[in-house]
Amino acid sequence: MKLRRSERMVVISNYLINHPYELTGLNTFASKYQTAKSSISEDIVIIKRAFEEMEVGHIETITGAGGGVIFKPSISQEESLQIGEELREQLSASDRILPGGYIYLSDLLSNPILLKSIGRIIAKTFQDEPIDAVMTVATKGVPLANAVANVLNVPFVIVRRDLKITEGSTVSVNYASGSSSRIEKMFLSKRSLPAGSRVLIVDDFLKGGGTIRGMISLLDEFDSSLAGVAVFADNAQVKREAFDYRSLLRVTKIDVDAMRVDVELGNIFTESMNEVTE
Amino acid sequence: MKLRRSERMVVISNYLINHPYELTGLNTFASKYQTAKSSISEDIVIIKRAFEEMEVGHIETITGAGGGVIFKPSISQEESLQIGEELREQLSASDRILPGGYIYLSDLLSNPILLKSIGRIIAKTFQDEPIDAVMTVATKGVPLANAVANVLNVPFVIVRRDLKITEGSTVSVNYASGSSSRIEKMFLSKRSLPAGSRVLIVDDFLKGGGTIRGMISLLDEFDSSLAGVAVFADNAQVKREAFDYRSLLRVTKIDVDAMRVDVELGNIFTESMNEVTE
Repeated sequence: MKLRRSERMVVISNYLINHPYELTGLNTFASKYQTAKSSISEDIVIIKRAFEEMEVGHIETITGAGGGVIFKPSISQEESLQIGEELREQLSASDRILPGGYIYLSDLLSNPILLKSIGRIIAKTFQDEPIDAVMTVATKGVPLANAVANVLNVPFVIVRRDLKITEGSTVSVNYASGSSSRIEKMFLSKRSLPAGSRVLIVDDFLKGGGTIRGMISLLDEFDSSLAGVAVFADNAQVKREAFDYRSLLRVTKIDVDAMRVDVELGNIFTESMNEVTE
Repeated sequence: MKLRRSERMVVISNYLINHPYELTGLNTFASKYQTAKSSISEDIVIIKRAFEEMEVGHIETITGAGGGVIFKPSISQEESLQIGEELREQLSASDRILPGGYIYLSDLLSNPILLKSIGRIIAKTFQDEPIDAVMTVATKGVPLANAVANVLNVPFVIVRRDLKITEGSTVSVNYASGSSSRIEKMFLSKRSLPAGSRVLIVDDFLKGGGTIRGMISLLDEFDSSLAGVAVFADNAQVKREAFDYRSLLRVTKIDVDAMRVDVELGNIFTESMNEVTE
């Protein structure tokens, strides 16, 4: 289909946004939009500049045969902090406190626009790590892992706490559940993760760390390695974990009687701010 | 930030793609990019034409005070059929057959690019229905529901088969599990769905229909109504259900001994093709 330059730029940027981290040859666009490769090159220059000025992301150009362009989404420091602050306020609302000191999170983790932003923030945090897959544990981690995997354009793998016949052969490990030291099992389908994968683990709430330690031991079973750990929120009352992690929010205090939750921005924001001021 | 027209069109289309079904006033863009509202209007005309020519989606313009533009994503018949055919081939692969005649689906439902396309196809199928939320049951339906909710920009609600303390008060219903007539319970957090919602139910595989009937009865408990049912695949060996549904793929035969699965395109494709030829 033959398009004008201005229209072409709209559809090319749409394509790149929907195919992040994917190498696309300029010939693909040239034949799709019946235009010379040199014109597509010029379009890309303009799109690249617009994306970079608005901090939507970076377009890398790979030259030579088999070359093309790769779009890597990003998010500006300003937008990122604004979302962090919005999440912090929402998480601090007193009506989230459940009996036992648990915090209701499901509404935040089922809002598409929020999830997209969270995905971009977490993906940016690990942008220098090669990542082949995002791993999480069912059920609440799934939308988060999905959001991060969307930005990185890698598959996500879902570890289960129960055994389902529709998963085929599985590998299981033991883990210490919750803050109790009860030992439970988690399962991952054998065919869901190729050996040698570098994996980003994502979960909703880090408390005792047992679930994440379980997933890390699963990585060993799959001859895969850990690229990083990211959680939506963590509870700073627990001791520093045996693994390094990044969180969007940190819950410093839950007072069930006073119906009060104290929440701070997590180290995803504080560490990236340090980088800026250094 | 002041941008050139060509750059402005790139960032405006990026914004619209990431905020589907959301009304945005032209003043928002005018002040963000320091440009006259009339110029933004002209930009929108070009973006609208490009999106429509490539069938990326439609931009509706609401005039008057409080007006603006709304982007509704779509997908072309051609791209849609191509994805349907690709999924059909992948599902037909003999190594998906698990003992007991189950089919392994998790890899298809954890691929971000495939999920995005599936989300667009399902959302387009129900584009004339007002939808307030997408509902699914944990775990395998979650990525699908998430993908559809992303396109429609509505929250998704996750029904659980087990009771979690982190969900707060829940409502439960009984349902007939699988092809057996074993009766089990499913649970939905009370605060996850406002009364009066119109809900699209999404699931991975329709066999006996018990799970979906369970979710429909949950809708009653929440004073909400059914906008439609969409499944990734269904098994045509079962009798026609008591509810209407749309599927992307239809499994007509599973032969465990011969390691063979016969798969056809589902009624999402066949019915929309009828509409075209009528």
